[in-house]
Amino acid sequence: MNTPLAPLDAKLDFFRDPIPGAEENGVIRVIDWILRGVGQVVFQSNWLSGIIILVAIAVNSPVYLVAAILGTAVSTFTAVFLGVDRGLIDAGLLGFNGTLVGIGLAFYQSTDFTNGNWPDVFLYVLIVVGSAMSTVILSAIASLFGGRSVPTLTAPFVLATWLILFGVYAFIETPHGTLVGVRELAPLTDTANYTFETFWNGTFKGIAEIYFQDNWITGLIMAIGVFVNTRIGGIMMIFGPALAAVIAMIYGADEGLINAGLFGFNASLTAIAIGGFFFLFDWMGAFYMLLGVVVTTFAWPAFATLLAPMGMPTFTFPFVVITWFFLLAKPGFSKVRAVAPADATYPEDIMRRNRSGDLAPGY
Amino acid sequence: MNTPLAPLDAKLDFFRDPIPGAEENGVIRVIDWILRGVGQVVFQSNWLSGIIILVAIAVNSPVYLVAAILGTAVSTFTAVFLGVDRGLIDAGLLGFNGTLVGIGLAFYQSTDFTNGNWPDVFLYVLIVVGSAMSTVILSAIASLFGGRSVPTLTAPFVLATWLILFGVYAFIETPHGTLVGVRELAPLTDTANYTFETFWNGTFKGIAEIYFQDNWITGLIMAIGVFVNTRIGGIMMIFGPALAAVIAMIYGADEGLINAGLFGFNASLTAIAIGGFFFLFDWMGAFYMLLGVVVTTFAWPAFATLLAPMGMPTFTFPFVVITWFFLLAKPGFSKVRAVAPADATYPEDIMRRNRSGDLAPGY
Amino acid sequence: MNTPLAPLDAKLDFFRDPIPGAEENGVIRVIDWILRGVGQVVFQSNWLSGIIILVAIAVNSPVYLVAAILGTAVSTFTAVFLGVDRGLIDAGLLGFNGTLVGIGLAFYQSTDFTNGNWPDVFLYVLIVVGSAMSTVILSAIASLFGGRSVPTLTAPFVLATWLILFGVYAFIETPHGTLVGVRELAPLTDTANYTFETFWNGTFKGIAEIYFQDNWITGLIMAIGVFVNTRIGGIMMIFGPALAAVIAMIYGADEGLINAGLFGFNASLTAIAIGGFFFLFDWMGAFYMLLGVVVTTFAWPAFATLLAPMGMPTFTFPFVVITWFFLLAKPGFSKVRAVAPADATYPEDIMRRNRSGDLAPGY
Repeated sequence: MNTPLAPLDAKLDFFRDPIPGAEENGVIRVIDWILRGVGQVVFQSNWLSGIIILVAIAVNSPVYLVAAILGTAVSTFTAVFLGVDRGLIDAGLLGFNGTLVGIGLAFYQSTDFTNGNWPDVFLYVLIVVGSAMSTVILSAIASLFGGRSVPTLTAPFVLATWLILFGVYAFIETPHGTLVGVRELAPLTDTANYTFETFWNGTFKGIAEIYFQDNWITGLIMAIGVFVNTRIGGIMMIFGPALAAVIAMIYGADEGLINAGLFGFNASLTAIAIGGFFFLFDWMGAFYMLLGVVVTTFAWPAFATLLAPMGMPTFTFPFVVITWFFLLAKPGFSKVRAVAPADATYPEDIMRRNRSGDLAPGY
Repeated sequence: MNTPLAPLDAKLDFFRDPIPGAEENGVIRVIDWILRGVGQVVFQSNWLSGIIILVAIAVNSPVYLVAAILGTAVSTFTAVFLGVDRGLIDAGLLGFNGTLVGIGLAFYQSTDFTNGNWPDVFLYVLIVVGSAMSTVILSAIASLFGGRSVPTLTAPFVLATWLILFGVYAFIETPHGTLVGVRELAPLTDTANYTFETFWNGTFKGIAEIYFQDNWITGLIMAIGVFVNTRIGGIMMIFGPALAAVIAMIYGADEGLINAGLFGFNASLTAIAIGGFFFLFDWMGAFYMLLGVVVTTFAWPAFATLLAPMGMPTFTFPFVVITWFFLLAKPGFSKVRAVAPADATYPEDIMRRNRSGDLAPGY
Repeated sequence: MNTPLAPLDAKLDFFRDPIPGAEENGVIRVIDWILRGVGQVVFQSNWLSGIIILVAIAVNSPVYLVAAILGTAVSTFTAVFLGVDRGLIDAGLLGFNGTLVGIGLAFYQSTDFTNGNWPDVFLYVLIVVGSAMSTVILSAIASLFGGRSVPTLTAPFVLATWLILFGVYAFIETPHGTLVGVRELAPLTDTANYTFETFWNGTFKGIAEIYFQDNWITGLIMAIGVFVNTRIGGIMMIFGPALAAVIAMIYGADEGLINAGLFGFNASLTAIAIGGFFFLFDWMGAFYMLLGVVVTTFAWPAFATLLAPMGMPTFTFPFVVITWFFLLAKPGFSKVRAVAPADATYPEDIMRRNRSGDLAPGY
């Protein structure tokens, strides 16, 4: 029943399992938590993915590297302190929201958002508070969804960061960067010409923007970080923003926004999540992913409009809302095959287990 | 135990049952789905209601007629494709949100919103995407409400259309009509004089605006479309916007807005939903409906204020939110008699079955 | 197992029990409902607390005294009329949202917000409608939370009042005060110097602003109203806004806003709710409360930003959202000890019962 690549995946399990020594050594365990947390932003429970993604960030900005590690550590330690189930913590699921809280707050308070400015103590305290709060919000959303098999996705990051970032106007000690500020809403009537760079950056900066990195090389390395765990996931990660860029060009969006990857980062996450991770990647799963990516492409500017009068960023909320809809909708759709969260490992494994009849019937 | 009108209703069951031949003939079934879907916007599972309402729209605008049929068909077909329960589809419940997505997107992208401009291919594609998405959102909301016996109402339409319409500023190929655009918020200090037309149009354009039609004759015909299924429902449909118009005049709202039916369309839906459909229409049910309509009257401008900075329309969200509150609240109110969704046929039938002791105890 | 203060608390039970004669005399029962409802805004089921708080309001403004009593009575009577469980009504839980709807609408429609202007009949009708609606919303939210042991807090007040207040721009007969109006969003760069008054008013006006009173003496009397029921609750009530004022000064917030108590009123409620009322006040409970207060301090300006383009007030929504997060999160945190709602009496009693092993294991 196995595919030719099954032996490769068996070898790669080394990186999916805990780092050797993690069971006995607390320091190694903490490193595993952080690396896995970083990987879980894009649904990869794989410490090598975490290393590669951190390298991708480091290539672009040491400021964001530190913020990412700090946030991941704080949200995870808060979870340990409050007594969260150890299995969830070991899977890196209490870390990934902190990763994004850390980078996100640093990013939107930097005047040089591409490379980042080193935070002062006021901002580091906010990163700690926000990351700790993301753990509370994660547990709250999990409780709200009850037995519905719907994950929190990055909603805890979005909500925790909004709770703090929306308040920056009120404090002298929380200056903000150029990307925060009321935006006037008016119809777009013109744009710079699209080039191959529009598409290329739209795709790979689209990936990099998941972690707030304005750098296509960073995006390319991040894709490698996913490929070492799953080929399908890696393809989805690239396909999502690529399709979003194409749609945005067809409908005539601003070249600068496409080029910056802003149409792509939500589409990338939706594609990974729906395309083979939370759903079996068969024909119906492919259609389901496709509809999700198309709607996400229009949802990003929709949420941007919603937040324009406050001058605030969407973060990954378009992805969260759209993917929640598709996940929540599942019980009503008999022809779509969902994967139970406990079974959501990586697409190839899910497909193999489905072929061998070894996959729970989903929900 | 029967009322004098029971024999009439027995005859009218012909239009409540599937169109003859629908069981055997796929084309007839699809026509039944579309007609019933159009009727379900105003809670009427009756294909004659669907025909009359489509006629009412056609009288005003062939553009919106086509958009309505297209949206209804796409949301229904998406449901069939994804494997939604056939009973729900046959009841028209997977069509009505698509009806409104279709007209709504065409309406707000038309420069001549009264008659509508024919959509281009960019817009038709968005109508298809939005209508398909409304089916996903419907299933998602149903799942969120779990076993609570609370219907989605028109929330899937509102959310799916918002997801696309909020993004129109971002694309050259999605120009928008005059009704979309940032509105300045300032207290109202003056208004044109109220006349009988204010009240009349406030009432019947109020009905027509449920389907985005700026035409009181259309509203009048639509009321007939409901009367052929239920007298109480028809009275509620008119009473809601009439009361809303009166309240708006007492509190001194802008004549133009009342005249355009904008205070009425949510009130009309709230009145139909609470007044005899989801609740038994006894004295307590009448009080419950009355409070709902009054609050809805103030809720429309409230939501309009919320959306003014983005320049976006409320759609029927005020009705959805208020009616959800009244439906969700039911379990805490021992003196209010709710109707189980499976029993929610039409008010007269519910009252008859209640008198004969044939009504489930509700929830 | 008892503490030295247990005998005092036993005596104070006189004020926690119904007013003598309430069982037999309807008028006394109604008075008990109103007093207890007023106390329940700050979680005190104690009619003496209600009296003292009403005195505190009367000291500042007879306008708001009348509005508070009217709102409390209407929301309670609506609950009786609709058949809400009598135990909830007798606990004052159907009154406190009406208290705030009443004062809130009067406050934001007054040109002299400190002392209040006497409402006209248009406004009194809205207070009645809003208070009645708060009862429907309370029951709806309770139903949404299902079996989760999460209370509605003041969300029914916030939502009911927003539903009406957001609409004031639309009606000539609903003029609004100076505190309603679109606010421009821009970074704060300067502020008046902080003095001891900043801290003092930030704390005690912070308490008073829970009931919309711009008067530190009122806040001080209100604190006494809580102290007669619980020492820990009283300390929390003061500690919350005091810490919020300090944080706001450290981060450089506008002196005028801190001085007006606006950073404090949500923090006060969060401190009372999490600090000993819904959670056992042990070391972990204290940490939990502390994180809650810190986040609430940043959440108030965050929600103010969200509402600035519409020119609307946050009310106590920051407190509601943050406290909901902490309450909902509980099942995921094995080291936090929650109190079952039926056991949530007052902190000292909860701690005593915990020591004597007489406390349910929470949820």
